[in-house]
Amino acid sequence: LPDKLPAIGATIFSRMSQLAAQHGAINLGQGFPDFDCDPALLEAVNRALHAGHNQYPPMPGIPLLRQRVAAQLLGGHGRAYDAEAEITITAGATQALFTAIQCSVGAGDEVILIEPAYDSYIPAIRLAGATPVGVPMTADYRIDWDAVRAALTPRTRALILNTPHNPSGRVASEDDLRTLAALAEQHDLIVISDEVYEHMVFDGQAHQSVAKHPALAARSFLISSFGKTFHVTGWKVGFVAAPQALSAAFRKLHQYTVFTVNTPAQWGLADYMADPAPWQGLADFYQAKRDAFRAGLAATPLKLLPCEGTYFQTVDYSAVSDVPELAFAEWLTTQIGVAAIPLSVFYSRPQERRQVRFCFAKKAATLEAALGRLQALR
Amino acid sequence: LPDKLPAIGATIFSRMSQLAAQHGAINLGQGFPDFDCDPALLEAVNRALHAGHNQYPPMPGIPLLRQRVAAQLLGGHGRAYDAEAEITITAGATQALFTAIQCSVGAGDEVILIEPAYDSYIPAIRLAGATPVGVPMTADYRIDWDAVRAALTPRTRALILNTPHNPSGRVASEDDLRTLAALAEQHDLIVISDEVYEHMVFDGQAHQSVAKHPALAARSFLISSFGKTFHVTGWKVGFVAAPQALSAAFRKLHQYTVFTVNTPAQWGLADYMADPAPWQGLADFYQAKRDAFRAGLAATPLKLLPCEGTYFQTVDYSAVSDVPELAFAEWLTTQIGVAAIPLSVFYSRPQERRQVRFCFAKKAATLEAALGRLQALR
Ligand SMILES: CSCCC(=O)C(=O)O
Ligand SMILES: CSCCC(=O)C(=O)O
Repeated sequence: LPDKLPAIGATIFSRMSQLAAQHGAINLGQGFPDFDCDPALLEAVNRALHAGHNQYPPMPGIPLLRQRVAAQLLGGHGRAYDAEAEITITAGATQALFTAIQCSVGAGDEVILIEPAYDSYIPAIRLAGATPVGVPMTADYRIDWDAVRAALTPRTRALILNTPHNPSGRVASEDDLRTLAALAEQHDLIVISDEVYEHMVFDGQAHQSVAKHPALAARSFLISSFGKTFHVTGWKVGFVAAPQALSAAFRKLHQYTVFTVNTPAQWGLADYMADPAPWQGLADFYQAKRDAFRAGLAATPLKLLPCEGTYFQTVDYSAVSDVPELAFAEWLTTQIGVAAIPLSVFYSRPQERRQVRFCFAKKAATLEAALGRLQALR
Repeated sequence: LPDKLPAIGATIFSRMSQLAAQHGAINLGQGFPDFDCDPALLEAVNRALHAGHNQYPPMPGIPLLRQRVAAQLLGGHGRAYDAEAEITITAGATQALFTAIQCSVGAGDEVILIEPAYDSYIPAIRLAGATPVGVPMTADYRIDWDAVRAALTPRTRALILNTPHNPSGRVASEDDLRTLAALAEQHDLIVISDEVYEHMVFDGQAHQSVAKHPALAARSFLISSFGKTFHVTGWKVGFVAAPQALSAAFRKLHQYTVFTVNTPAQWGLADYMADPAPWQGLADFYQAKRDAFRAGLAATPLKLLPCEGTYFQTVDYSAVSDVPELAFAEWLTTQIGVAAIPLSVFYSRPQERRQVRFCFAKKAATLEAALGRLQALR
């Protein structure tokens, strides 16, 4: 077989979750909640199952769920997406990212990603035959626009934005999006905007969706995840919102990639989203978890980095150890009993930092138990 | 945007289902049942939902469901697949086909498909950068092995087999599989075996799975669909079984294509499949529908072609009309009120036949109503 991804092994999330299970570690690695969703959502899916919603839905998703998404985006951000032509339901955000990248770029094209970057971007770019160009963030995890400008070439066709940002927890500012809008127009770039943590922005800051910036929205794929928003990461339902020409290109590939997405989950989500904003309170909910987790970590030698959004907290462990990040994450998992994700896996070039990421989307008892173990660090 | 599939529009299934809905036609086009699954399966998913199975499952699927698949394949066909390393749960058979093709071939490679061929094969091959080579079946829809041999070149890397065959309803013989095994070994081919109708083989014939032929299984991706087997096409859960090296290559791409598949559906299916063969009786069930449908069609000027498996019946309409197949299918949908699929869409080259495909996976009342309309044909 041809090896289409020679440099790439199993995702860090599978590897660390497996290691955590093997060693009975508390899994703060892979990003998923260890608590359940609103029972009303489960009931809504059960109703759909029993109402006969078990055959193929329309290829782009059921109209009602697409309408709910359009209404949400209009209410929250601004752009009026046409539910019929501009919203497509996907088999999770990973598939949305994969397909958006496949239809945006091909051989000879370059795609800029801001590093650290979610680990599926580079493989998806390579499978499209294009070349990923990683641009490091500043030391405090802001987008370095001068570095982005320096990385642009006549072959640059697309840029992947991710805000709130995984793994750093930073959120992009209005200025960031204005800068991006200007660059994207000047260089005629497609923007692929990974906004899966859109409802998890803390301390009163506002999420900066591409949908809020009309010139940007006109050339962007906006991608999000019902799994992240409603605590059901295993359902694998997400969406992509994009202007008609982009959505048409997306659907052309989508129909041969997965064709369509789990029908009862779509009906259940649509039904549940009749409540106009079921994600209300989500930011406060996770902010309280962040605060409790940070307070506990303050009693350890781990140095806290800022966390403005997402459900991830990055720490600097250099006061504890000087081993590289992957080795430290493995040691933490197997010896201390808390799994974490090394930031090095989110970079295309070797890094010299000493940082790992914890997921705090966990029950209070889980976070307390993990903190108990981490407080043994010296 | 680059157009990665310039010759390709919306799938025929979406187009005909939409046309059927617009015109109130009875939809015998797209292949899906209009009745529900066993209520015990719905209850099994509901239990999974309420048992907290709502977060990411392991990337290749939950172990229990993979074990059930391995047990099924061992019981039914022969090869002992290792559930851990050789079975992967997919977001339906379309995604399994897409990913198997992506990891099997690349630029410069040729892939043989037997035409008529399911419409997702060619786009998937093109997206991999490879070249599809369509080899027509004989006039009575047998695989034409001489034509296959003539199509082989040093660049041929893979062949797509589909049995029971959509749209013709033919099933491959033991001889067919022996011939394929010899050819595949001689020319070092990967075989991608689409067996989604594996449990729908009629008149006492046996399904010829690649799993029954060890030399073939050793170089094959065997793909099937829980959606087709259990009347839940909208759940979008399928599987791929392949030897370890092929499965490893598959998973490497799978993890960045969709990452993983709906957790509660996986648990529900695994639970339901504890009954050692819940598909028992399926062949008889569909054979009775086939017989009733054929008996009704015998009273029309449509000429019946053989149907040995699948839930599709192909007919020759040349006694009714001489218009090309797509136009006839549209006319049948809009004027007679019965949607069908033109066979021409399953070919890479224009065809001169006059044939359309009906899906008989419908309630007796639906088939009767459709027959009532078709009996108006003169
Ligand atoms: C698809 S598994 C990874 C989940 C996630 O988004 C993360 O941990 O960063
Ligand atoms: C993926 S929709 C098409 C369903 C099907 O297998 C068919 O109608 O041939």
